[in-house]
Amino acid sequence: MARVYNFSPGPSMLSEEVLLMAQKDLLEYGTTGMSVMEMSHRSAMYLDIYNESVQLLKELMSIPDNYKILFPQGGATQQFSAVPLNLMKTEKADYIDSGNFAHLAAEEGKRYGKVNIAACSRADNYTYIPDLQKANFDPEADYLHITTNNTIYGTRFTQMPKTDVPLVADMSSNILSETYDVNDFGVIYAGAQKNIGPSGLCVLIVREDLLGAARACCPTLLNWAVLSKNDSMYNTPNTYGIYMAMLGFRWLKAKGGVAAMEKINIDKAQILYDFLDSSTLFSGTAVPEYRSRMNVTFVTGSDDLDNQFVKQAASAGLVNLKGHRSVGGMRASIYNAMPVEGVQKLVAFMKKFEGENAS
Amino acid sequence: MARVYNFSPGPSMLSEEVLLMAQKDLLEYGTTGMSVMEMSHRSAMYLDIYNESVQLLKELMSIPDNYKILFPQGGATQQFSAVPLNLMKTEKADYIDSGNFAHLAAEEGKRYGKVNIAACSRADNYTYIPDLQKANFDPEADYLHITTNNTIYGTRFTQMPKTDVPLVADMSSNILSETYDVNDFGVIYAGAQKNIGPSGLCVLIVREDLLGAARACCPTLLNWAVLSKNDSMYNTPNTYGIYMAMLGFRWLKAKGGVAAMEKINIDKAQILYDFLDSSTLFSGTAVPEYRSRMNVTFVTGSDDLDNQFVKQAASAGLVNLKGHRSVGGMRASIYNAMPVEGVQKLVAFMKKFEGENAS
Repeated sequence: MARVYNFSPGPSMLSEEVLLMAQKDLLEYGTTGMSVMEMSHRSAMYLDIYNESVQLLKELMSIPDNYKILFPQGGATQQFSAVPLNLMKTEKADYIDSGNFAHLAAEEGKRYGKVNIAACSRADNYTYIPDLQKANFDPEADYLHITTNNTIYGTRFTQMPKTDVPLVADMSSNILSETYDVNDFGVIYAGAQKNIGPSGLCVLIVREDLLGAARACCPTLLNWAVLSKNDSMYNTPNTYGIYMAMLGFRWLKAKGGVAAMEKINIDKAQILYDFLDSSTLFSGTAVPEYRSRMNVTFVTGSDDLDNQFVKQAASAGLVNLKGHRSVGGMRASIYNAMPVEGVQKLVAFMKKFEGENAS
Repeated sequence: MARVYNFSPGPSMLSEEVLLMAQKDLLEYGTTGMSVMEMSHRSAMYLDIYNESVQLLKELMSIPDNYKILFPQGGATQQFSAVPLNLMKTEKADYIDSGNFAHLAAEEGKRYGKVNIAACSRADNYTYIPDLQKANFDPEADYLHITTNNTIYGTRFTQMPKTDVPLVADMSSNILSETYDVNDFGVIYAGAQKNIGPSGLCVLIVREDLLGAARACCPTLLNWAVLSKNDSMYNTPNTYGIYMAMLGFRWLKAKGGVAAMEKINIDKAQILYDFLDSSTLFSGTAVPEYRSRMNVTFVTGSDDLDNQFVKQAASAGLVNLKGHRSVGGMRASIYNAMPVEGVQKLVAFMKKFEGENAS
């Protein structure tokens, strides 16, 4: 069959150009006579790949020289532990609880110290980003942790909190989808499987002055200073994942970089939200002010119709539209690799479904 | 150029049949319309892959029902931390120091409790497996840790230690290359990048009664009970790595399984060691009794000739033969995916080199 439009929240759709390149390289990368999967991570041929990945990410995000770019394993979840293990010197930290993963990050933080939930929208099923009042921050906190985009609920921080302590951001579901000033952050981390490449890889961007304070019980591989000193190769990294990230970074650069991609992403989201706001059947679930550009959540108001929609859409080659169980309904994840045509096809299908089912 | 014979110690050569299958599947897996890299780890199509990987490994290693099979991230090195964090109840453990990675595992253990080095060959540059005397074991140890094959030095445990405590084995460089009785072990773990698939994945086989004793500071993703309860999917695992492992397991099963592969591996090693023992130029560096079947270490006695050999061999399509700096000389890593023809070509090349260079 033909390739589908895959609206999965993650792992998620990759660019066909990236996949075609990976397919071409699979048995022999260039003139090396071997697959990237077979390369020693210490070999010159592999280090070229590694260094290109780092350089491209640095360029794409305009990462200043005083930040280290690392590729740990374990996805973002492993960093839920690494953040307090590396940063909680006073054993106090502020967290914004704006969604499921933000909540899990805070829960893991509580295992290592005193976590102050400085703002929370949990009681309202995370339909918005909670209001940030500086008075609610702990003045002794070692850092403030946020989740810039909330995959499950389809919300997004529209501006970064102002804080005197290092801002630590889980950007798993919107990294490289919009421009950020890295200088605003102490640490940025992101699981790769949404906007970067396949799962099993994390991108970690850490300001160098924050390195070196890991607590005694921190496992060696979770110690950012160790990873930094060894350029992510204290042990064998996820070599193929880093190569796929490189292909994805090359593709993004060829598309014009993050600023150009941000415009496309705004357009893609707008197409969907405009339709939702005019629809007689579908409606968005997130508070409009905080709507995500990456994950668009919506419902018909009827579980039965929702199920029919998801099923019929899949038959039409628009797959993985089922919403998370905690929100219900539908969710269209439209990361960088989702082409505008995919979103247009989805809206056309929604219109058709509406025509057939609106009362 | 043609594919080379890759003697890299890891990441290392993969079977061409496996790579061809991965290449064929790359844009569309079966009738799914998507790459395996794009699949949600929670989707039925991906769970089929996950479950087949688990079942094939269970079958290949005859893993009893009271063991859990897990696929953590972070390679074997992450388990150097996870082992003490999950098993050190009395804060005491025995380690056998038989090589660099065995040493690193013990060093990481020391960060969490009292490590007794029950046997050690470090003073002799690890050219043999040290003698195991039960009197040297700590009667209060929570476990005994060994490294079944020592990649850098080319040595191998020829028999498992007899112990009353759980035996924990790092099998990174010889898992699936010879038959073991899993019942002899409490825990087996192995980085994937030698005999299983690409790097960024670990295989962990743990007896169920050992689960549930992780200490308070154990990061959630390193807690085996959490991974076990969630079938390795507490968070998104390395989905593509697990798929590549499945292809590798299918290939091994088609070859007749571990017992059949062990015969081939004995033959491959014998071809090399027989030549080394009769050579007037080359000699093996490991004590013969403990010679590895996976990593064959050898020298000419001259650093200059060693360098020439490595260089000329690479030109002839026999690559990554340089030995680890701590041993020098050469190392031929001949894991499961190295065909017997690769070893024969290497020996033919060594004979030619000997003819040109022996005095």
